Amino acid sequence: MDKLHVIKIGGNIIDNPVLLDQFLDEFAQITSPKILVHGGGKLATKMANQLDIPTQMVEGRRITDAAMLDVVTMIYGGLINKKIVAGLQKRGCNALGLTGADAQTITATKRPVKTIDYGFVGDIVEVNTPIIYQFLCMGITPIFAPLTADKDGNILNTNADTQASALATALSKELPTSLYYSFEKAGVLQDAQDDNSVISQITPTFYAELKEKKVITDGMIPKLDNAFIAIQNGVENVWIGQASSLLSFLNGQETGTLLSI
Amino acid sequence: MDKLHVIKIGGNIIDNPVLLDQFLDEFAQITSPKILVHGGGKLATKMANQLDIPTQMVEGRRITDAAMLDVVTMIYGGLINKKIVAGLQKRGCNALGLTGADAQTITATKRPVKTIDYGFVGDIVEVNTPIIYQFLCMGITPIFAPLTADKDGNILNTNADTQASALATALSKELPTSLYYSFEKAGVLQDAQDDNSVISQITPTFYAELKEKKVITDGMIPKLDNAFIAIQNGVENVWIGQASSLLSFLNGQETGTLLSI
Repeated sequence: MDKLHVIKIGGNIIDNPVLLDQFLDEFAQITSPKILVHGGGKLATKMANQLDIPTQMVEGRRITDAAMLDVVTMIYGGLINKKIVAGLQKRGCNALGLTGADAQTITATKRPVKTIDYGFVGDIVEVNTPIIYQFLCMGITPIFAPLTADKDGNILNTNADTQASALATALSKELPTSLYYSFEKAGVLQDAQDDNSVISQITPTFYAELKEKKVITDGMIPKLDNAFIAIQNGVENVWIGQASSLLSFLNGQETGTLLSI
Repeated sequence: MDKLHVIKIGGNIIDNPVLLDQFLDEFAQITSPKILVHGGGKLATKMANQLDIPTQMVEGRRITDAAMLDVVTMIYGGLINKKIVAGLQKRGCNALGLTGADAQTITATKRPVKTIDYGFVGDIVEVNTPIIYQFLCMGITPIFAPLTADKDGNILNTNADTQASALATALSKELPTSLYYSFEKAGVLQDAQDDNSVISQITPTFYAELKEKKVITDGMIPKLDNAFIAIQNGVENVWIGQASSLLSFLNGQETGTLLSI
């Protein structure tokens, strides 16, 4: 089988029907095996507001209580996932919507309560590589909602970036795998204020330099740390760029930022 | 492979967490290949009310407009389906949640507008027997939400009874298949007022008699007509009874109503 592409899209695509349609057009054109992981976007918060479910935040992070879990299960696992699946089928891509609970593809545990109780939030324990690999061999394109389940039947809200990374790392044991993060910016920027300052390649050594020079700071650090961990664990490389540039990149154009050893 | 059991549950189970739990306990104990089709229950109507989406009824039938389609996609495809899947995984049953869009398992067309425009309601055109059969061979238990999709990427609200019947009929070409309808009553009753008057077996000849004598009337007629059509098209037999009696029936007890040629 060809190289596997694990692609993650987030709110900037999901919340914008025009961008989502464009993305699905391009995604369906990728002929090699592929997995899509979609985040949640703003729709769950909007729905929670409409249903008068208060959004609980602790230290800037959302708490998933039982009511909020129902909302994300509906919105991520139902509305967003099924619209993407039907939209891809229309485009000739044999999509199959999944949460971690489905066919036990991803098992998680409820995040342990230390100082903060995040509620029904999952930390990934195990990816069921054989079944996902079998789906790929059947010509199926798995479309993952950012939801997993624990062994007690609890659905758990799960970070889509982490989920994409866990899937790519696990599948890299079966076939060469690359991971693609769709990003609102054109890539990792040398100067956060200048959208044209995309850094085209980052190696671990260069990454250490960029951190030391404080070119890369704050929110980008955990993202890139996780990307390099995936690479150390078998993923060939990680691309960060705009969803609209993904197909150009796959066709050989230099766009976005490529992380590799 | 053993005989396939296609089981449909409706609102009386889905809307009652205690009954649903009991049903999942029993369903997980069925060792032969099985498919579950769940209806929608009252949760979608409740959610539509909470979101101020008016329920449009024409001649006693619900119209699925775009707003209502989003609600049923969330509730049927997301909340109900994923709770059942996670609940079955906990019980050791390798459940996989599906709509007709997923892996193109069931293709439908939007119901043509004659006197009434039902909106986004699907009439089933084709069941993808090979892929569903392959899932069963992999030890997967498909859990169908009452949603299908057309070739244009529209998700369509679909009657769960019809969906169960279409699945059973299609799969009966691959392996011996029985269809089970969970019902609020203990079976087809001789006297609608007497819950103890269950008719244990109905053949086509006996059915004609029962209709002529007006023992079976109104709403039961399309249900039984559809059941006999499934039998004429390859399904071994159709059982109608209470979900809580299903396991007893499968273990050889006489309970509910069995339709067969």
